Amino acid sequence: MHDWTAPSADDISLLASITGPTGVREGEAAAPYLQDPRDQVQGQAAIVLRPQSTSQVASIVRHCAERRIGIVPHGGGTGLVGGQTQPTGVAPVIVSLDRMTAIRAVVPEENALIAEAGVILADVQAAAERAGRLFPLSLAAEGSCRIGGNLSTNAGGVQVLRYGNARDLCLGLEAVLPNGEILQGLKTLRKDNTGYDLRHLLIGAEGTLGIITAAALKLFPRPGATVTAMLAVRSPTDAVDLLSFLRDELGDAITAFELIQARGVDFLNAHHEGVVDPLDDPPEWRVLVEVIGPTESGLEDRVEASFAVAFEKGLATDGVLASSEAQRQQMWWLRETIPEANRKVGAVSNHDISVPIGRIAAFIDDGITAIEKIDPSLRINCFGHLGDGNLHYNVFPAEGRRRDDYVNRRPEIKTAIHDLVHAHGGSVSAEHGIGRFKTEDLVKYGDPAKLAAMRAIKDALDPNGIMNPGAVLAS
Amino acid sequence: MHDWTAPSADDISLLASITGPTGVREGEAAAPYLQDPRDQVQGQAAIVLRPQSTSQVASIVRHCAERRIGIVPHGGGTGLVGGQTQPTGVAPVIVSLDRMTAIRAVVPEENALIAEAGVILADVQAAAERAGRLFPLSLAAEGSCRIGGNLSTNAGGVQVLRYGNARDLCLGLEAVLPNGEILQGLKTLRKDNTGYDLRHLLIGAEGTLGIITAAALKLFPRPGATVTAMLAVRSPTDAVDLLSFLRDELGDAITAFELIQARGVDFLNAHHEGVVDPLDDPPEWRVLVEVIGPTESGLEDRVEASFAVAFEKGLATDGVLASSEAQRQQMWWLRETIPEANRKVGAVSNHDISVPIGRIAAFIDDGITAIEKIDPSLRINCFGHLGDGNLHYNVFPAEGRRRDDYVNRRPEIKTAIHDLVHAHGGSVSAEHGIGRFKTEDLVKYGDPAKLAAMRAIKDALDPNGIMNPGAVLAS
Repeated sequence: MHDWTAPSADDISLLASITGPTGVREGEAAAPYLQDPRDQVQGQAAIVLRPQSTSQVASIVRHCAERRIGIVPHGGGTGLVGGQTQPTGVAPVIVSLDRMTAIRAVVPEENALIAEAGVILADVQAAAERAGRLFPLSLAAEGSCRIGGNLSTNAGGVQVLRYGNARDLCLGLEAVLPNGEILQGLKTLRKDNTGYDLRHLLIGAEGTLGIITAAALKLFPRPGATVTAMLAVRSPTDAVDLLSFLRDELGDAITAFELIQARGVDFLNAHHEGVVDPLDDPPEWRVLVEVIGPTESGLEDRVEASFAVAFEKGLATDGVLASSEAQRQQMWWLRETIPEANRKVGAVSNHDISVPIGRIAAFIDDGITAIEKIDPSLRINCFGHLGDGNLHYNVFPAEGRRRDDYVNRRPEIKTAIHDLVHAHGGSVSAEHGIGRFKTEDLVKYGDPAKLAAMRAIKDALDPNGIMNPGAVLAS
Repeated sequence: MHDWTAPSADDISLLASITGPTGVREGEAAAPYLQDPRDQVQGQAAIVLRPQSTSQVASIVRHCAERRIGIVPHGGGTGLVGGQTQPTGVAPVIVSLDRMTAIRAVVPEENALIAEAGVILADVQAAAERAGRLFPLSLAAEGSCRIGGNLSTNAGGVQVLRYGNARDLCLGLEAVLPNGEILQGLKTLRKDNTGYDLRHLLIGAEGTLGIITAAALKLFPRPGATVTAMLAVRSPTDAVDLLSFLRDELGDAITAFELIQARGVDFLNAHHEGVVDPLDDPPEWRVLVEVIGPTESGLEDRVEASFAVAFEKGLATDGVLASSEAQRQQMWWLRETIPEANRKVGAVSNHDISVPIGRIAAFIDDGITAIEKIDPSLRINCFGHLGDGNLHYNVFPAEGRRRDDYVNRRPEIKTAIHDLVHAHGGSVSAEHGIGRFKTEDLVKYGDPAKLAAMRAIKDALDPNGIMNPGAVLAS
């Protein structure tokens, strides 16, 4: 544990003078900055500061570095692993980026855009769209999460299969380092081999190596045509083979390939009105596939021809192509409302995991065995981004029982699933990061050489451990 | 300058015992490992070691770390900035990866392949092809460069526009860190948010933070169809606008967009027999465009339709679509033989630079002015990967004079061009890296906050400075 200190009354007034009164939140006004989205913990703050410029952020960090005051950076507050809340120990200074919301530049001919860290993800998407471009990062919280947080946590979402994670969408960064220096890295160059790539070190560091203040982001051409379909498959193995086949046929035009288990549809039917299933005969396993093309011309024919071969090969047993935007949205509603239905049922334990695509089928089989060993009446709902190897593997109470009945079994279940993920060469944090909730998992499952190097880098760049103390690397 | 020491006779015999006699090269046998591809410097070595396994590499590094002996890692030896040769100071141990040439795994359903660092790039491409996949990294030295070196230098090449640089093609790394510990990061996962991304820190670090011993690489579907064309444009500005227009029309199916100046074709005609120019009326500026699609169906029609609109808009004034594989190769020969013709003419100064795509036209104009100011009789040949903003900007003697006549003007020319690149927000090392030849440029043009952080990271991971001493960060 590093010895960062509580800010004195003098520190507080000096820090407040940097942002001015409208940039300060204290008492009840600070409450929104202390919440955890799943109410798992309650954050605390000596003061919440809302700087309006990179130089204000730098002044705050410089003062805190001198006085060894802990800082917790805050974006949209939507992180699911406690990275933005520090519930115990000395109350930190929270630095919110929510007043740094300028889009500094949009450069369509370079397929690039420069946004300040506080720009809401949906606003980045909208700015790209106005310029006739696509910013493909897309996830459930896009209406409230902020791009700085997306980058700090290397967010994933629904189009990773085609466009990559947040880090793959970033050309350059501006950031305030733990000593208060400003890293000037907002270049939009596609090729720049001048020294260590600090951009990728800050991305995914969850605010422990500095505060991202602005980013140069990659834009893409907008697809001219989209084909969406739901296909029944006999097993996860067939789903993996179907994806491999479709990639051979359609190239990397496949933007989404989502696995859905019958239990997810059952939960929807039990808790939502008027669910329309595009498939007449609901299968145990199905996939939602989306394919893009530059123009309408022939895309649907090509996709249909590929599906016809897939049916012949037995890789899919039934299927429906969305014949209208309304039907397309119906298909996506089915996929995207499963988490809500899950919450209504109430999971005993949720796991956001990834395994190599070739191991998915074996992992799913082994998971059933492992959970049956703990309690055969537990119900599994397994779904997610099959194309990325990223599954939401959630375990539910037996029919007629409640999650609270299993509260003592939760650690056992979590450990069983995480051990299995690790054994299959997977990751126990596919897209949410480590935050404060998974620091023990990082130590348990992480590579010791990597952990030691991470610690050395952290100590080198932040010798007093003031940046997001306790996140990623538990002190 | 850190105080790494010359290995003693005992050190040498201990190190030699790690690899065994077949893994040692000394005296004349060591010569191939000491060459610079452009004969600009002569390397030196206390001993050349050729380990056959990651554990042998680790044993070597552990011993050198204990004894503070400098190590220079060696891949294919094709680097153009002196990263693999240490011409002065205490002679280092050279660790060549050229006996670590196993492809450990090919996993087509995951679009992944695991190769040891010493695998020659063309062999990686061939392994991918045998599995029905594409490994898109492609560059002139692909027959002799090795994948470990490609990653250490973050190599670029001709398909960056569509597929990214070497770092974008890497899913995970195995490496020996400067303390001799093995980083076990060979996962093929597409989503894994568990701590700092050391992969991206080692990629592009040019062997100064560790030795890459193996890599998990991303594979792609093989394109089903390719359309290649040469188009005349009135100016670099029009070329940039044409690219922007074609991206709107064709999406990101454009894999190459190469700018060629008339002078390059003139040099070809002067020094090569039987040059066939696909364009009847050679223009001052032209582009070579390549577009891919998943199948033959309709791609050529779509490309032709887009070109027709480009002609109507005046973005292109003439053009030829390759009607056969032979004509396609003729077009590429024209582009790819320009560097050879350049060498025959003999450049005064070569510059591998990048600028934002939107600045290319202004940079080219300003470059003409800057060079005219130095000597109006100097000739410029400017060509390269326009789509990446990466230009080969080469300056030649006046007609009838030789490069040696200008040897004293070279620094002035280099500085003028690099200053201009910097003023336009560009990079003075687009794809070759810093090595030992550009360490002063890094200090002159680099961000001080970035340099300080790089130094802190280097000192943290390699406190005795034994890994590739003098490269990237001059001691």
